[in-house]
Amino acid sequence: MTQLALFEKRIHEDIPLTRALGVRLNHWDGRVLVVSAPLAPNQNHQGTGFGGSVYSVAVTAAWGLTELALADLGLKGSVVVQNGTIDYREPVTTDFYALCRLPGDEIPERFRKSLARHGKGRLDLNVTVYLGEPTPEPTADPVALFHGRFVVRDVHSRLSL
Amino acid sequence: MTQLALFEKRIHEDIPLTRALGVRLNHWDGRVLVVSAPLAPNQNHQGTGFGGSVYSVAVTAAWGLTELALADLGLKGSVVVQNGTIDYREPVTTDFYALCRLPGDEIPERFRKSLARHGKGRLDLNVTVYLGEPTPEPTADPVALFHGRFVVRDVHSRLSL
Repeated sequence: MTQLALFEKRIHEDIPLTRALGVRLNHWDGRVLVVSAPLAPNQNHQGTGFGGSVYSVAVTAAWGLTELALADLGLKGSVVVQNGTIDYREPVTTDFYALCRLPGDEIPERFRKSLARHGKGRLDLNVTVYLGEPTPEPTADPVALFHGRFVVRDVHSRLSL
Repeated sequence: MTQLALFEKRIHEDIPLTRALGVRLNHWDGRVLVVSAPLAPNQNHQGTGFGGSVYSVAVTAAWGLTELALADLGLKGSVVVQNGTIDYREPVTTDFYALCRLPGDEIPERFRKSLARHGKGRLDLNVTVYLGEPTPEPTADPVALFHGRFVVRDVHSRLSL
């Protein structure tokens, strides 16, 4: 199994709602994570994407990106979301996907230093949501914009306190 | 069946994710709606409430309040969420519930006039999330705060355009 397939399995096991959402991890290249979901289980009363589902897929993309980027750096931390904001631009009329990119294509230096020095760091991440087939290079405009702040605590530092 | 039980049935049918969330409608008195969910299906990798689940229950409370308040006024409209923000204050360690209250305990006059004149109105709603047994009069501090903007379009006005 690839790193991404293993991580998808772990998410489905650890966060049962991601199974109900039908979340799939489609792409990870060290900078960009793409997470998709089918419309059917995520429909609302109007047959378009339920706002809670779209938010949930977006927050999964940002949280997942943080976990994967930490693992690539050989770091181990506990990642939790502190706040989230979503702006729904257009109705979600088809299967959809969320794309999260590391700011500046890498884990910020400030975040790494904070994690090393204080055992804690904050990451501000943007996620864009699109309709259709998942791709790391969308050409259409996003249907929703998510912003979230994530707090990472170094597991080892916490244990040594 | 009571109005609230019928509405719960409708939500479960129209928005399948609310069944996966285990959403129950507990209380509606014309001003306050209480919506609860069990922790088990909403756990994250740390055994506490998944951020996407907490957001989804909160947005269901605010959307549901808008639908119920419109019905009480004899109005029929389509309600969609335009944006949402959530601030996670404390980990969700037990079953939880979301409470939404009409601002000033009633549908604002400005909203009603806008809906009557333009066939469209906006409602800004706050939701507070608490741990434990659902009640319309919580005494503890909330574990999460949600704010959302909802757009209501009068179905009849739209049809007559």
